[in-house]
Amino acid sequence: MGQERTYKRRPIGVFDSGVGGLTVVRALRAVVPGEDIIYLGDTARVPYGSKSPRTVERYSLACLQFLLDREVKLVLVACNTVSATALPALAAASAVPVIGAVDPGAQRALAATHNRHIGVIGTLATVRSGAYVQAIAAHDAGARVTAAACPLLVPLAEEGWTDDEIAWLVARRYLGPLFAADPQIDTLVLGCTHYPLLRDVLGRVAHELAAHDVAVVDSATAMAEAAHHVLGSGPNRRGEPGRLDCFATDTSRLDELAPRFLGESPTGFALVDL
Amino acid sequence: MGQERTYKRRPIGVFDSGVGGLTVVRALRAVVPGEDIIYLGDTARVPYGSKSPRTVERYSLACLQFLLDREVKLVLVACNTVSATALPALAAASAVPVIGAVDPGAQRALAATHNRHIGVIGTLATVRSGAYVQAIAAHDAGARVTAAACPLLVPLAEEGWTDDEIAWLVARRYLGPLFAADPQIDTLVLGCTHYPLLRDVLGRVAHELAAHDVAVVDSATAMAEAAHHVLGSGPNRRGEPGRLDCFATDTSRLDELAPRFLGESPTGFALVDL
Repeated sequence: MGQERTYKRRPIGVFDSGVGGLTVVRALRAVVPGEDIIYLGDTARVPYGSKSPRTVERYSLACLQFLLDREVKLVLVACNTVSATALPALAAASAVPVIGAVDPGAQRALAATHNRHIGVIGTLATVRSGAYVQAIAAHDAGARVTAAACPLLVPLAEEGWTDDEIAWLVARRYLGPLFAADPQIDTLVLGCTHYPLLRDVLGRVAHELAAHDVAVVDSATAMAEAAHHVLGSGPNRRGEPGRLDCFATDTSRLDELAPRFLGESPTGFALVDL
Repeated sequence: MGQERTYKRRPIGVFDSGVGGLTVVRALRAVVPGEDIIYLGDTARVPYGSKSPRTVERYSLACLQFLLDREVKLVLVACNTVSATALPALAAASAVPVIGAVDPGAQRALAATHNRHIGVIGTLATVRSGAYVQAIAAHDAGARVTAAACPLLVPLAEEGWTDDEIAWLVARRYLGPLFAADPQIDTLVLGCTHYPLLRDVLGRVAHELAAHDVAVVDSATAMAEAAHHVLGSGPNRRGEPGRLDCFATDTSRLDELAPRFLGESPTGFALVDL
């Protein structure tokens, strides 16, 4: 009993190269609201996407260690770049389960699609890595996956321009060629932590282009559900909401950005040096 | 005579955190076409804007050394972030003159303005550094400077979406508040190496918002002119165009991006590890 209570009380750790991973925290707080969460954003070294796999692995191992030192019972790797390049190294270095962003999104897409035509959008680094294509193929070699990189969506989300003329035009510009390449796409994976902020416009433009229903799968929600699954009967079900402690390696612009991704104002970020 | 010819024949070095600095190379080839140029883009570690000043200084000193090892006679620091944070350290470490991006742009803006109302646009890091405001004030304490960060302009330029509906809407969204803050602005400084690609749309939107003429000053052209000035009677005036050698620390997407910024296709990038 004492052991079980101790496990329940240990926090869940989430890390990302920046603030985008707060969309995962938001999803986690909806799915397992009683859990305590420790969030780490490596905002001084963001973005990881342009760095070499060796550097990404080194930085993300430091993030993992920071969370392990705080006795987390589970680690969610919100960063798609890390998930695509360093997950085996992280899993090998961790005594607790490590959940990446790619596989939960891939599995959720396969559960949602009726015709196995899946579209994936993400950053240049994520699309170039082929991680989603491989993860989907690992579960269903017959699924057809079409991917598109959408570099403007991250700054759009960070500016908060998520439901206006510019967002609509940019969404059409990116999704147009995707649906032209495979008009049968019935499931769209948002393969970047920033994209849930643009979920509404992306979903509506996808529907408009496809002229049929398109399920939108975001990896943040998929990761939260995977975490719930891993916790099994273990989630902390106390009545009050869990505690959220946020850490970052650089605090500039966090006050402006964090509430957009979290959907509420965090109580503040503590500055840490990794 | 031998000494002078040797000086003339030595190349000019240009470095940037990425490919944007090729707009400086383009301006340089227009102003001093006979000069040989060595370009270095630290594309593996781009962007510098989110890194600590200490890291920016360390990386840029490595870029400088790379160019000095190739016996350049002059170094142009195309990166605004480096210019704003590490120029004194670079100048101290260099036996040849070092020209930054900020001061030439500031001086050119002061030469262009009739009423000393100047607008500056740049990345978040550049605007936050206050570098242009300080550089303009150092030459004319009575000039009024209004600055705005425009995060979407870099990805717009990289996507090549420089003259369409999205570019126009984004330009209006950013320049609207700038001209609302100071309707008398008669000179607009493009304080980022990427922005010359959007010069046309930015100039036309500025004119439309101000309802009077607005001079557009880009730091790339200002730097090329500063280089011409430093060379004095020294520029290589041979009839044929000078040689351009390009180096980068990561070559992904260079084939697509480099021609947009250079205005021609470079003969190729050599991969280097700094």
